[in-house]
Amino acid sequence: MSVIVEFSIFPMDKGQSLSPYVARALKMIRDSGLPYELNPMGTCVEGEWSEVVSLVDRCFQELQKDCNRINLSLKADYRKGPPGRLKSKVESVKEKLK
Amino acid sequence: MSVIVEFSIFPMDKGQSLSPYVARALKMIRDSGLPYELNPMGTCVEGEWSEVVSLVDRCFQELQKDCNRINLSLKADYRKGPPGRLKSKVESVKEKLK
Amino acid sequence: MSVIVEFSIFPMDKGQSLSPYVARALKMIRDSGLPYELNPMGTCVEGEWSEVVSLVDRCFQELQKDCNRINLSLKADYRKGPPGRLKSKVESVKEKLK
Amino acid sequence: MSVIVEFSIFPMDKGQSLSPYVARALKMIRDSGLPYELNPMGTCVEGEWSEVVSLVDRCFQELQKDCNRINLSLKADYRKGPPGRLKSKVESVKEKLK
Repeated sequence: MSVIVEFSIFPMDKGQSLSPYVARALKMIRDSGLPYELNPMGTCVEGEWSEVVSLVDRCFQELQKDCNRINLSLKADYRKGPPGRLKSKVESVKEKLK
Repeated sequence: MSVIVEFSIFPMDKGQSLSPYVARALKMIRDSGLPYELNPMGTCVEGEWSEVVSLVDRCFQELQKDCNRINLSLKADYRKGPPGRLKSKVESVKEKLK
Repeated sequence: MSVIVEFSIFPMDKGQSLSPYVARALKMIRDSGLPYELNPMGTCVEGEWSEVVSLVDRCFQELQKDCNRINLSLKADYRKGPPGRLKSKVESVKEKLK
Repeated sequence: MSVIVEFSIFPMDKGQSLSPYVARALKMIRDSGLPYELNPMGTCVEGEWSEVVSLVDRCFQELQKDCNRINLSLKADYRKGPPGRLKSKVESVKEKLK
């Protein structure tokens, strides 16, 4: 019943150096205990749907404290079946690439 | 304190005729009472952050009933200030286009 | 052979009032002659794949003139078959909603 | 003058096992010679704007050969300055997380 969610969240009213804000969101992600992977354009997190929704909610509320404009983009891929897809999706493609 | 969320949700295991599933999600959106606009690639909804998160959650759970794989994509634009941005954002751009 | 592309493009180094920049991109879209629809979160354009790619390219190059950081997000839905889907996709969903 | 583009492309008319199609697109990416990183939800590629646009175009045309419906989603982050951001963006966030 796992969902993989990739999302990125950043303020639009704080200039172009965004990594301090991204780091605050990432701290929420890390502290959630859910498996995650940071990439150059976002973070992929795997969990139950309700867990990842709650996590995204907490990240938004963290930035909302001091940001007047926030941009969030999110993609979710839900598939009925066992978890572990954070690894298996990438491996499945690499396997076929050989 | 308004957020505009645009999202699209569809099953990936039901072939390429998706409008019956999109309609089920859209029914949830309509029944929420929040202002919304359907476009060819998604639906824009405006509300409080907690309201729109709860709505996206209900849409997901509706499709999860009978879909084994679901794709969701979402963009949110939060801006501190008065609501009504579903109209005002488009008008502001059109004004400058003249 | 039509593609519908929805995209949004904005500078990340110009503060939070983005409509002047969005208007410059929209002018490119309007001048392309392709059918389009502006919505609160982006613009949907329909055309041949090569036409829409070329249009997105021109929008990017327009903003690149004076923006040091640019964010672009884009979704494309290609379907073999007749054009006119900018209208027919929305109508198909609304029909099923009744 | 580097752009990082993250994109995912898959057919919507071939059922839910998509990795063979993703692998065909990834082969195009690998053969481009541009630095890239595969993640569970897409692939990040860094290059000049014209290079990455041309690459996305080739991936689309590869799938168009035998797919009747194709979904593409793409995010681009352009920043005037030196390349190497595929690594430096992630490192910058991790640094601040400590």
